[in-house]
Amino acid sequence: MKNVVIIGSGNVASHLIQFILANEQLNLVQIYARNSKDLNLIVKDSLITNDYSCIKEADLYIIAVSDNSIAEVSKNLPFENKLVVHTSGSASLTAINEKNRRGVFYPLQTFTKNKLVNFSEVPFCLETEFEKDYENLEYFSKNFSKLVYKISSEQRKYIHLSAVFVSNFTNHMFTIGNEICKENDIPFEIFKPLIQETVNKIDHLSPIEAQTGPAVRNDSETIKKHLDLINNEKIKLLYLNITESIKNYNVKKL
Amino acid sequence: MKNVVIIGSGNVASHLIQFILANEQLNLVQIYARNSKDLNLIVKDSLITNDYSCIKEADLYIIAVSDNSIAEVSKNLPFENKLVVHTSGSASLTAINEKNRRGVFYPLQTFTKNKLVNFSEVPFCLETEFEKDYENLEYFSKNFSKLVYKISSEQRKYIHLSAVFVSNFTNHMFTIGNEICKENDIPFEIFKPLIQETVNKIDHLSPIEAQTGPAVRNDSETIKKHLDLINNEKIKLLYLNITESIKNYNVKKL
Repeated sequence: MKNVVIIGSGNVASHLIQFILANEQLNLVQIYARNSKDLNLIVKDSLITNDYSCIKEADLYIIAVSDNSIAEVSKNLPFENKLVVHTSGSASLTAINEKNRRGVFYPLQTFTKNKLVNFSEVPFCLETEFEKDYENLEYFSKNFSKLVYKISSEQRKYIHLSAVFVSNFTNHMFTIGNEICKENDIPFEIFKPLIQETVNKIDHLSPIEAQTGPAVRNDSETIKKHLDLINNEKIKLLYLNITESIKNYNVKKL
Repeated sequence: MKNVVIIGSGNVASHLIQFILANEQLNLVQIYARNSKDLNLIVKDSLITNDYSCIKEADLYIIAVSDNSIAEVSKNLPFENKLVVHTSGSASLTAINEKNRRGVFYPLQTFTKNKLVNFSEVPFCLETEFEKDYENLEYFSKNFSKLVYKISSEQRKYIHLSAVFVSNFTNHMFTIGNEICKENDIPFEIFKPLIQETVNKIDHLSPIEAQTGPAVRNDSETIKKHLDLINNEKIKLLYLNITESIKNYNVKKL
């Protein structure tokens, strides 16, 4: 299984296209894209179509479009009984039209435009409708990364939810820290080693064991001092809520 | 300035002691500790005293005790007009008794018991009461790390507050992600590359530019799906609050 058609032109599609083009074991047969503006920079025009009826024969069709478009795009495919996968963290396998053999090929990573992804360090969450397709999809995925996991649609929903906490919400904690720094003329760089060590710690400890700070120590004096420093009422509320949540988890632990 | 007395036996004190003992430019004159139980493993008994009147002559006295004890400990020191610093992120310089020349030597890092700290990557926030002491304290600190910053007591309060967001609260986001994984038989390891990339991104982008996820996309369908997956009402509220906060910041950005 080496001949691939990519459907989509967004962030994930672009990163997959660039990887497949650079990999000698894989062959990018074609790209279907309604909007090929961004793609022209990375592939020849002749590889791109915007006409469903022109989509070529391949071993695997990867739909990398927004969750809401998966159903429509997969319905428009002009063939049946082929292996068609999507790349979404939150859409079910059944979002794909049932006329094809369905699957999921979900790279668990945060993709940034114009920043190359090292796929060898990206975990892939795989799922197929039919057992016989799993082996092929797994073999295909190992061209990208050794980190390949069999994950059901049900589990994947929770992975996507957890990813929001560990990545999106974590980044928001950085945003708030950065704002506090800007207001007080402190270079945000000063926090980079602390942030890296916070991440390194969970290589050796579970996150609940790694918890430090005033909330887990129940240091109400420091908590009060911090609340007094925060002018923004919404951020104050957030500080209180997360502090309470840390206390709750710690009580459970004891 | 190379002869140092450390006052305290906790986590920060232990890490400083180990570093100073291993550094040829520095001389650990003595440790004052009420409770020397943990210290016996890393230093000879003869280096430790629990009697204030026995504290020896040194160039620098570092008080590494809990915030609440700084005032009392510094009052009990049996000398005057020496350079005495504390290591606290949240206590003011003036927490130290005024009979000595006061200062702050605050390593901005999260310390874990039994895990050696690489001080060369730790930023030190320095402050002194008298300008002439600053240069000496800076010179001393550079034995530990090149990352030395002049930070006022006022700024340091905000650094400590930011550190709670970027480290303690971030770790709590990991805890929640880990709990969701445990409940759904998902290995938490699967998130390590995502977490690392979340941190790498803020080397190139400001945190607000690096924000991704359903909140910043205003993807209410995914947000609703996620809320439906969370059983715990407190975690649900936390999800909602952080999502709202991301939306608020993003509106400000636009």
